[in-house]
Amino acid sequence: MTDIAARNLQWAWTLIDTFAAAGVREAVISPGSRSTPLVLACERHPAVRTWIQVDERCAGFFALGLARVERRPAILICTSGTAPAHWYPAVIEASESAVPLLLLSADRPPELHDCGANQTINQRRLFGVHVRDFHDLPPADSADPAIARQLATQAWSECTGLRAGPVHLNVPFREPLVPSSLQTPQPSASHLPVSRTRQKPRPEQISDLTHAMNGRRGLIVCGWDSGEEGFAGAVSGLAEQLRCPLLADPLSGVRFGNHSRNAAISRYDAFLRNKGFVARHQPEWVLRFGAMPVSKALGNYLQGCEATDFVLIDVTGRRLDPLRRATALVTCDAVPLCEAVAAANPEPAQEGWLEGFIEAEQRSALAAHKPPEARIVRELVDQLPPGSLLFSGNSTAIREIDSWSGTAAKPLRIIANRGVSGIDGNVSTLAGLAAAHAQRSVGLIGDLALYHDMNGLLAARELDLILVVLNNGGGGIFGYLPQAGLAGFERNWLTPTGLDLEQVAQLYAVSYRRVDDAEEFAPALAAALEHHGPQLIEVMIDRAASLEAHRRYWAAAAR
Amino acid sequence: MTDIAARNLQWAWTLIDTFAAAGVREAVISPGSRSTPLVLACERHPAVRTWIQVDERCAGFFALGLARVERRPAILICTSGTAPAHWYPAVIEASESAVPLLLLSADRPPELHDCGANQTINQRRLFGVHVRDFHDLPPADSADPAIARQLATQAWSECTGLRAGPVHLNVPFREPLVPSSLQTPQPSASHLPVSRTRQKPRPEQISDLTHAMNGRRGLIVCGWDSGEEGFAGAVSGLAEQLRCPLLADPLSGVRFGNHSRNAAISRYDAFLRNKGFVARHQPEWVLRFGAMPVSKALGNYLQGCEATDFVLIDVTGRRLDPLRRATALVTCDAVPLCEAVAAANPEPAQEGWLEGFIEAEQRSALAAHKPPEARIVRELVDQLPPGSLLFSGNSTAIREIDSWSGTAAKPLRIIANRGVSGIDGNVSTLAGLAAAHAQRSVGLIGDLALYHDMNGLLAARELDLILVVLNNGGGGIFGYLPQAGLAGFERNWLTPTGLDLEQVAQLYAVSYRRVDDAEEFAPALAAALEHHGPQLIEVMIDRAASLEAHRRYWAAAAR
Repeated sequence: MTDIAARNLQWAWTLIDTFAAAGVREAVISPGSRSTPLVLACERHPAVRTWIQVDERCAGFFALGLARVERRPAILICTSGTAPAHWYPAVIEASESAVPLLLLSADRPPELHDCGANQTINQRRLFGVHVRDFHDLPPADSADPAIARQLATQAWSECTGLRAGPVHLNVPFREPLVPSSLQTPQPSASHLPVSRTRQKPRPEQISDLTHAMNGRRGLIVCGWDSGEEGFAGAVSGLAEQLRCPLLADPLSGVRFGNHSRNAAISRYDAFLRNKGFVARHQPEWVLRFGAMPVSKALGNYLQGCEATDFVLIDVTGRRLDPLRRATALVTCDAVPLCEAVAAANPEPAQEGWLEGFIEAEQRSALAAHKPPEARIVRELVDQLPPGSLLFSGNSTAIREIDSWSGTAAKPLRIIANRGVSGIDGNVSTLAGLAAAHAQRSVGLIGDLALYHDMNGLLAARELDLILVVLNNGGGGIFGYLPQAGLAGFERNWLTPTGLDLEQVAQLYAVSYRRVDDAEEFAPALAAALEHHGPQLIEVMIDRAASLEAHRRYWAAAAR
Repeated sequence: MTDIAARNLQWAWTLIDTFAAAGVREAVISPGSRSTPLVLACERHPAVRTWIQVDERCAGFFALGLARVERRPAILICTSGTAPAHWYPAVIEASESAVPLLLLSADRPPELHDCGANQTINQRRLFGVHVRDFHDLPPADSADPAIARQLATQAWSECTGLRAGPVHLNVPFREPLVPSSLQTPQPSASHLPVSRTRQKPRPEQISDLTHAMNGRRGLIVCGWDSGEEGFAGAVSGLAEQLRCPLLADPLSGVRFGNHSRNAAISRYDAFLRNKGFVARHQPEWVLRFGAMPVSKALGNYLQGCEATDFVLIDVTGRRLDPLRRATALVTCDAVPLCEAVAAANPEPAQEGWLEGFIEAEQRSALAAHKPPEARIVRELVDQLPPGSLLFSGNSTAIREIDSWSGTAAKPLRIIANRGVSGIDGNVSTLAGLAAAHAQRSVGLIGDLALYHDMNGLLAARELDLILVVLNNGGGGIFGYLPQAGLAGFERNWLTPTGLDLEQVAQLYAVSYRRVDDAEEFAPALAAALEHHGPQLIEVMIDRAASLEAHRRYWAAAAR
């Protein structure tokens, strides 16, 4: 009997130790009995920090946040039954946004399956196509730990591959689960190092590209997940050299930082609504990195533009091209591509091309009558200390940040769950980011997003984070859609919860500030930045007034 | 353009109208844009009542509760992306406990897939093996509504089949989604009625069975999901006729009701711990209906018993037999089997056999030194009005109800999510039950279960329900397991949330009562029963004292 428990622990230890040897540092654990050997292994491993989350859905997004900061895989552990199913939304977001997660679901052994045993379901391929791979491990007590080591290396390699993402290991354990004595397990054999090469472009790819660019009007467009470490500097240098506008999504990493930002453009969502400007500013080529940017105005502009060369760069070979405009897809890393093009020294665009965009950018920055959200975003960008991390919710929050963040030399990292752009898991993702990020972590989300992941506030209690909630009384984004005209709009689409956020904050021991007018946000944020621990700033937004202010602003921009 | 929106609505209407014609009455909707045609169709259908739930996870369990009361399929509707993934835990529970659900996930049309379009994921076969079937519908605007009608009938038939369960329809819509005028859609063609036959046993099955029973000591064991309408009366009559004990799980439907209960035994979890009793009371045959009962003592007794004939009845043909004791499996409906065996008139067991169990039952009922939870369960059973529905959480709650409910003539229905026995979705399931059940609905759950599904309280605001929370400061069930001896027990297994439940109640406008001593529960429950609307009674349980009381009680029972 004891032998089984000891072998369970040795097996679990081998998995965890192999992950740790490969660089994993964090494990997010939800309570349960069947997962006990995995929990014991994590607790006893000196290199692994553990986080406890009762709600597995929160655990999933928390791990997503942890892993997102440095794209370092985080471990998720839960018990058998429906427990791992709660990870599904976070798993799908991780898959779509290429965040590496190691999903370890404990399971009952094969002999308890398909016989009506309690809390036993078929956990095989639970996440379908939304994981990079799935491995059903043999029962821990009856197999050589070398198998665990091999499969752990394999899983680590898959989840950190060219296209990173979640990998699922289903880990059955027989009882007993608690060894009679907790001796330190045997050290595992040395880890098999996995080394990767940089994906460099071939010379003919570069000569094709520079030929298309040479002396012509170009645009470089960067969405989220644009490129690897060093991308902002490389692409900014290239844009400047080519004298072409660098249209940078807030999630591209290009808007903020002390690289040259002379060609960086961030306010295109406003001035690309102007038909005259668009008619006068037609690119001949477009170079696109990463996913499609948030801005719909930019999407429309790219969709209709006259460019004859429209090149996508994606190291994983995906054609992320809902506009169907691509004329070439180059599958290489972004930095070596930028460097190689720059080294080939193509002729820049003629004078006036980049300058036209810069002027439009400046005009937009000075525009009057901005909506109240503009003030909120500007204060965030101005007040956050260098090195801070700003997490953005989807829907309204990311659009406001897109419109109003501008660019700055201050290093500031903006992160959002744009893989699927869901309303879910926002609080937990921010908590995970805050847990992994040594400096300030601040989130800007809506009131429905807060409600959807309210359980995530439990983990926030131990962390330094500021949550700014734009409370516009429900799904404000729907106010911009045709559904707003329907009789059942409030009940079926807006769906305000009516919850008092001050009470929410109190319940979770989160300190609370309320801002009734955007003007009051600056001192509220300043005060929050002077404190530590979890803090919530509720910003009351008059939905109708905000909608009207946005419409006025866009109308003015379009003129 | 308008044509597309009108066709979307007609298509959605055809689906909903076909379900309604088949008897569906409830739709649970989570907000979103892409699902608009489905929402409009439900809102405009006179036979369909709609419920709005912002959190899709809650929506899933709420629909599970709605559908569980009468095994009538409930519709779930949500938008594209991760939204349907939140249904997964409820889908798995529905699959394992045979509750029919019609899962309608809106989707973007095929041309927006696999191209990096926002909020678009592969929703095909999202729930893997955990649905009875999956149908990927053609885009609504480009196909004949007769296809929608056909697939809706097919889905309804699958989800209400011999083994009921969830069915997933993925429903893509092209924009625009809101018609310019909301004319009433065309009535759908008449619904194809689906009629089912009763699964009756064959004569030779009955003669084999009665031969095995004839004049011998037998046991009838009923777990949850034991049989169809009329089962309690049929099986009780049979047990009495055979003079054999009817060991009835609290979820079997046999403990409560005005059928004869002369052979019904409910306190076996206590007296089957007594080795002397077990040695003196060995069955020669066992007839088992439904899933394995909750009681571990009963499981051990059945595992080790001397019965040479061990017959399972399961109309779906599953061998729900983790004990590996079955000697025959009869795949027919339970009521006709009971009736046919009774009509064959086998000899009853000799006198003294049933009486031994009845005496043990009576002794257990009179035992002193019961734990505080015994008092809670007894008050619930005594005070709830006839026709009430008692929802039980898993872990501690169901074990306490198993031990202390006894039996009674008062009709009382006890329901739990025993398909997977998860800690999840308890509040929402209770809310769904309350929404579908005209009489009192009361839940008994633990504090972790409340936290796990706290968002479910939003829907409770509109409903008549009483939630009794046993607050033992975390996962009290782990106190009975070897993990309780580990150093990290509280942090990793017990995981108390520390949340103040009075504040939780206040946040959701649920009226609140606190009970510090089990003696105070009776007046608190009586007071709650005099009011309507959502109510929460928090019962403080001293975990150590309760554990000790249970151990003392079991030790006494074992002597």
